[in-house]
Amino acid sequence: MISRSTEIKAQFYDLDPMNIVWHGNYARFLEQARCELLDHIGFNYLQMAATSYAWPIVDMRTKYIRPIRFGQRITVTATLVEWENRLRIDYRIADAETGAVLTKAQTTQMAVHITTGETAFESPAPLLEAVRRAAG
Amino acid sequence: MISRSTEIKAQFYDLDPMNIVWHGNYARFLEQARCELLDHIGFNYLQMAATSYAWPIVDMRTKYIRPIRFGQRITVTATLVEWENRLRIDYRIADAETGAVLTKAQTTQMAVHITTGETAFESPAPLLEAVRRAAG
Amino acid sequence: MISRSTEIKAQFYDLDPMNIVWHGNYARFLEQARCELLDHIGFNYLQMAATSYAWPIVDMRTKYIRPIRFGQRITVTATLVEWENRLRIDYRIADAETGAVLTKAQTTQMAVHITTGETAFESPAPLLEAVRRAAG
Amino acid sequence: MISRSTEIKAQFYDLDPMNIVWHGNYARFLEQARCELLDHIGFNYLQMAATSYAWPIVDMRTKYIRPIRFGQRITVTATLVEWENRLRIDYRIADAETGAVLTKAQTTQMAVHITTGETAFESPAPLLEAVRRAAG
Repeated sequence: MISRSTEIKAQFYDLDPMNIVWHGNYARFLEQARCELLDHIGFNYLQMAATSYAWPIVDMRTKYIRPIRFGQRITVTATLVEWENRLRIDYRIADAETGAVLTKAQTTQMAVHITTGETAFESPAPLLEAVRRAAG
Repeated sequence: MISRSTEIKAQFYDLDPMNIVWHGNYARFLEQARCELLDHIGFNYLQMAATSYAWPIVDMRTKYIRPIRFGQRITVTATLVEWENRLRIDYRIADAETGAVLTKAQTTQMAVHITTGETAFESPAPLLEAVRRAAG
Repeated sequence: MISRSTEIKAQFYDLDPMNIVWHGNYARFLEQARCELLDHIGFNYLQMAATSYAWPIVDMRTKYIRPIRFGQRITVTATLVEWENRLRIDYRIADAETGAVLTKAQTTQMAVHITTGETAFESPAPLLEAVRRAAG
Repeated sequence: MISRSTEIKAQFYDLDPMNIVWHGNYARFLEQARCELLDHIGFNYLQMAATSYAWPIVDMRTKYIRPIRFGQRITVTATLVEWENRLRIDYRIADAETGAVLTKAQTTQMAVHITTGETAFESPAPLLEAVRRAAG
């Protein structure tokens, strides 16, 4: 399993009137961990942009188990679970100190050809090669 | 079915470097439509805050079908689909002009007692009454 | 004076733990009003993008006079005050009902040549012509 | 001078269609550095909340000198410059590698009594004591 963790500290601007991180802000936490994972694989945003494909997010699911509070340090772990036909990444957010699981999430990305706008039903070669190198 | 639609115009600040609305910003669109729906039901954020329960989002899923672009007018429709044990709302985002479906989403909220922090496994009376009034 | 007003309703996602709109979110309100003004002038983001210049914001100042609360309807008025050498827009946010002034702000944009990255010390012709047409 | 620096890495979600950090997102960078400074002084959001006063931002100014790009590491330095009558903090954002100055900014906060809503024209004792301890 190719996996990568990032530590983030919840900020004041993340909070809502309930004094917990607003649910919509988790997309930023997931993206930060996803970018660390894709950096590690060697297929980050700049490397993607050098191919003929963009990789928009086509599905995102988040299960909020326990709230995140001001100043709380969290560990966001992103794990690559599918890459042959689409790019699926699973996430787990845990309290950085106690390890208690706070959130589970997943995102799915599809390769879309930049000029034709067509969806690729098999992942283009640059991703497959990058995953092979990172796994090997 | 209790349902409510809101029209939103995608702004520059919603966009990412791909010139489409960043996937994480859809949570704002959904919330705006959800608030219109809860206003209509008579159970908005201020009315919730007057009860002993908060209603955090415990699950959110978004399926991104077609991208949203700068200046595009979208119609976000929120529909109440469950309320007896938890509050589940389904969303559909369509192009305001052509009606083409752009996004489908759902959120689930649970009632949590403000002082004890305990989850209520049946919806507290104020929500049930509000739904009954709005439906009747 | 070329001026344009937009009405906005403060949303739940705009709020911070003090139950008022978080100060950093005002940049969105200003941008929405600025885009309406530039649309009216005929020099919006897409029309800008068709020239050789981008117009980054080089200075922004905001004076927060009274807080904005959940559900409050505000009128954001953007007024063009300079355009010959740089683009300066002044903003006033007022309560949509009472007219009470809530915020004053200003933004300054400079034309930067897209390929050379050089700042233009006089506004390029397309802006000057658009302003002349809108003023006449 | 009481001063504190924070390193931040610009994320994909910070970017706008020009491929630079959207100007409105700098408020988050400033707040993160301000919180580090206030933590160091011993007067952070939680410590503020334990007094009778809130400290809303009443003025914010940002001068954008050079853009910030994807993945760029920046150092945000917050310096306390006034505290006797109001809380003024100056900021400087520099490239973490080259030290080139990218942004200058300032925020002003006033103490507002939580129950009466009245502005305090001299800083309440808890801030003055915290600054004295941090300076000494």
